[in-house]
Amino acid sequence: MTTTPSQTLASFAATLTFQDIPEPVIRRAENLFVDWVGSALAGKGARAVTAIERFCMAMGPVPEPTGSHTVQGAAEILMSRRTTSPYLAAMINGASSHFIEQDDVHNGSVFHPAAVVFPAVLAVAQATGRSGRDLLTAAVAGYEVGIRVGEFLGRSHYRIFHTTGTAGTVAAAAAVGNLLQLTPEQMLHAFGSAGTQASGLWEFLRDAADSKQLHTAKAAADGLLAAYLAADGFTGARQILEGAQGMAAGMSQDADPAKLTDRLGTRWALAETSFKFHASCRHTHPAADALLAVMREHDLRHADIAQVVARVHQGAIDVLGAVTVPQTVHQGKFSMGTVLGLIAVKGVAGVREFEQDYLHPEVAAFRDKVEMVLDEEVDRTYPVRWIGKVTVHTNDGRVLDGRVDEPKGDPGNTLSREEIEQKASRLAAFSGAASASDMAAFYAWAWRLADHPHVGRLFSGASA
Amino acid sequence: MTTTPSQTLASFAATLTFQDIPEPVIRRAENLFVDWVGSALAGKGARAVTAIERFCMAMGPVPEPTGSHTVQGAAEILMSRRTTSPYLAAMINGASSHFIEQDDVHNGSVFHPAAVVFPAVLAVAQATGRSGRDLLTAAVAGYEVGIRVGEFLGRSHYRIFHTTGTAGTVAAAAAVGNLLQLTPEQMLHAFGSAGTQASGLWEFLRDAADSKQLHTAKAAADGLLAAYLAADGFTGARQILEGAQGMAAGMSQDADPAKLTDRLGTRWALAETSFKFHASCRHTHPAADALLAVMREHDLRHADIAQVVARVHQGAIDVLGAVTVPQTVHQGKFSMGTVLGLIAVKGVAGVREFEQDYLHPEVAAFRDKVEMVLDEEVDRTYPVRWIGKVTVHTNDGRVLDGRVDEPKGDPGNTLSREEIEQKASRLAAFSGAASASDMAAFYAWAWRLADHPHVGRLFSGASA
Repeated sequence: MTTTPSQTLASFAATLTFQDIPEPVIRRAENLFVDWVGSALAGKGARAVTAIERFCMAMGPVPEPTGSHTVQGAAEILMSRRTTSPYLAAMINGASSHFIEQDDVHNGSVFHPAAVVFPAVLAVAQATGRSGRDLLTAAVAGYEVGIRVGEFLGRSHYRIFHTTGTAGTVAAAAAVGNLLQLTPEQMLHAFGSAGTQASGLWEFLRDAADSKQLHTAKAAADGLLAAYLAADGFTGARQILEGAQGMAAGMSQDADPAKLTDRLGTRWALAETSFKFHASCRHTHPAADALLAVMREHDLRHADIAQVVARVHQGAIDVLGAVTVPQTVHQGKFSMGTVLGLIAVKGVAGVREFEQDYLHPEVAAFRDKVEMVLDEEVDRTYPVRWIGKVTVHTNDGRVLDGRVDEPKGDPGNTLSREEIEQKASRLAAFSGAASASDMAAFYAWAWRLADHPHVGRLFSGASA
Repeated sequence: MTTTPSQTLASFAATLTFQDIPEPVIRRAENLFVDWVGSALAGKGARAVTAIERFCMAMGPVPEPTGSHTVQGAAEILMSRRTTSPYLAAMINGASSHFIEQDDVHNGSVFHPAAVVFPAVLAVAQATGRSGRDLLTAAVAGYEVGIRVGEFLGRSHYRIFHTTGTAGTVAAAAAVGNLLQLTPEQMLHAFGSAGTQASGLWEFLRDAADSKQLHTAKAAADGLLAAYLAADGFTGARQILEGAQGMAAGMSQDADPAKLTDRLGTRWALAETSFKFHASCRHTHPAADALLAVMREHDLRHADIAQVVARVHQGAIDVLGAVTVPQTVHQGKFSMGTVLGLIAVKGVAGVREFEQDYLHPEVAAFRDKVEMVLDEEVDRTYPVRWIGKVTVHTNDGRVLDGRVDEPKGDPGNTLSREEIEQKASRLAAFSGAASASDMAAFYAWAWRLADHPHVGRLFSGASA
């Protein structure tokens, strides 16, 4: 029997151990974990996230009056510091992780790994008493699988489907499967059960609806479900990814099975993952950095600028195109004009700037000076590279080109641990989910994650 | 603003009342409910169903030692007579409903409504203290919506996707949304959250994997989740069905939006739903009935037959084609040769016959005499009509044609209440989930369902 790409990938995910992973990849995984906690905390108080938490708390285990649980193993809801079962904790933390649009992204697969992988592995590691090394190993398995599934599904998939929801379900299954010590055969079944649950459509963007929170919530929880079922003997399709009636057959026109097994064990896709620096849709970041660059180089103020042409890839036009005048903060994050307006007027497009100033008159005026055009070079190199290009027309008649080859937060331009702490602390303060001292204690613990024999609660006591 | 098909359909589902529904449709809904309970009981003891129940019981509310619950409202797990939250009860009963392949089907949409609609509405009706009329009204809303969504998604969808999983998620949302008294606007959001979770791929058939149980489980539970979230203000895409990045855009090539609103309120698609008479994949039924007809007409025994040509539609070849020699009972139900073999040798292709005789030497020998060919007339009229045609070559050289225009269990050839009771009782006895006296008490209660002010437990006490 020949080995299929699904088998090879499942076997890799099942058998990956801490010792297999190079030290710099482990360190980067710790960075991504800390960065994720900031995003998960940032969802506190968001209406859509709170609705998902309310549903889960109504449908799940009831904490006893003492705060202890009768369920086997309890998992932490980061934003509220309550506990529930791993399935429902993964759903809630998954919902909160992507709300503020600051979680990490893998450029080549246009996939947000942290928002679906960490909610699942943290919940299961806590509930089953596993170590920090186990958590990190499982997370790496999830990143490596999810990124390759996203690359495999390709650009045609991403035009309609939210890859973080679809590939994310398989990623969460791979991560939890590694943690549950599935055999390669069981992992293949977990992939089958995950892939047949994979879902998430972009249609919600048109209405600024809440579906993105549902996509990450369900990817984390459904992937966890798939792995638990596989551990209990439940079987799934053996070629859910590349089979004739599998994910690619149903949801892609340009799937490439070779991507599924690309340099497994030597290429660490996790280390290619970018931190998000601006609080907006990733598709706006290259142009935002290019605009910052040209404004700094030529010492321009926003009032000096008559027009900005953002030169982008087709995916940016597809995802961002529907929004013109944003009606909500969330739509503002998908409005290229608003993002460039905040950069030009405020110098920063952070969480607080979006909340306070996405309709600021100067920002709105700048927004109307921005247009997007398809750029042949940017489009050709995307999604492997996210080149940023803008052309700025000044009021005094100059035409200035700005360009960045690698946006801030990308692997070649990554964040330091200090910058990661600053970002996470800003997010925690924004939502009020954790105090500065809570966060300081968390960092001290998290930077030694690989040394902890048990992953316990990250935050104890009542919410800040 | 123009009204979209999604809006029209959502408004219908939200505002449908008991008084709107003709008496014969209510009676048929009761028949379908009783038929469904038989199927839900029949899943007891099945490995895949038990795995899903174990997962839900580990992740959900824990019954107190007294058997009462601290959660708001408890819903019944029919096969085990335990209770849990509505979300998890819908998941478990959804898993068990489709296991034995005896639940109802709507021919035109190739959709199994009962397996996804009744688990969701029973759970919510029990947990929230609603009446029998409320349950029936909600079920009708679910059938009418799910069938139209299945018809809308079309045959190209069904080639890759398990429509019962995909359209079923929207059906469950419509049903629960009606029960939760969502406004039309909230119902539209429930559709959005349901459609963006819709999933289910046929790839598992190749491996006889357990995914079908997962598809019905998740459709029922995910649809319920969508409706509860909508009641709590969570928003979804307003055109998840027909929008440019919606379900049809991603998962169909021949979607027809006019199907979504076809004669709402005058055409009752629920009454077009067929009861399954044979315990096999529905695609085998027309040929099975045609073979029975020709064998009776010409007084043939299986030993008289040299060859059978089953004349079928393309969908039958797509779904059944992969299996030749079945390795499991489940595969046997998807093997045209095995089904016709049981019909020819045993005269019946029921649950017990599959369990005991799917590899019986005479059945296997007959199986190898069967071939399927595409029939132009059958294919052209499918899925509106499921014509059965076989050509039988006898050992003494005769060539005999068998034909049925409407298989047993279809609306024009439907089951009586006595036949429905007999079928449900056989299923309950097969799994051991309910005794004959349990079932007799249930029938007496169920045939007066519309009179009951509260839907309580269907079966009390310990499992039979």
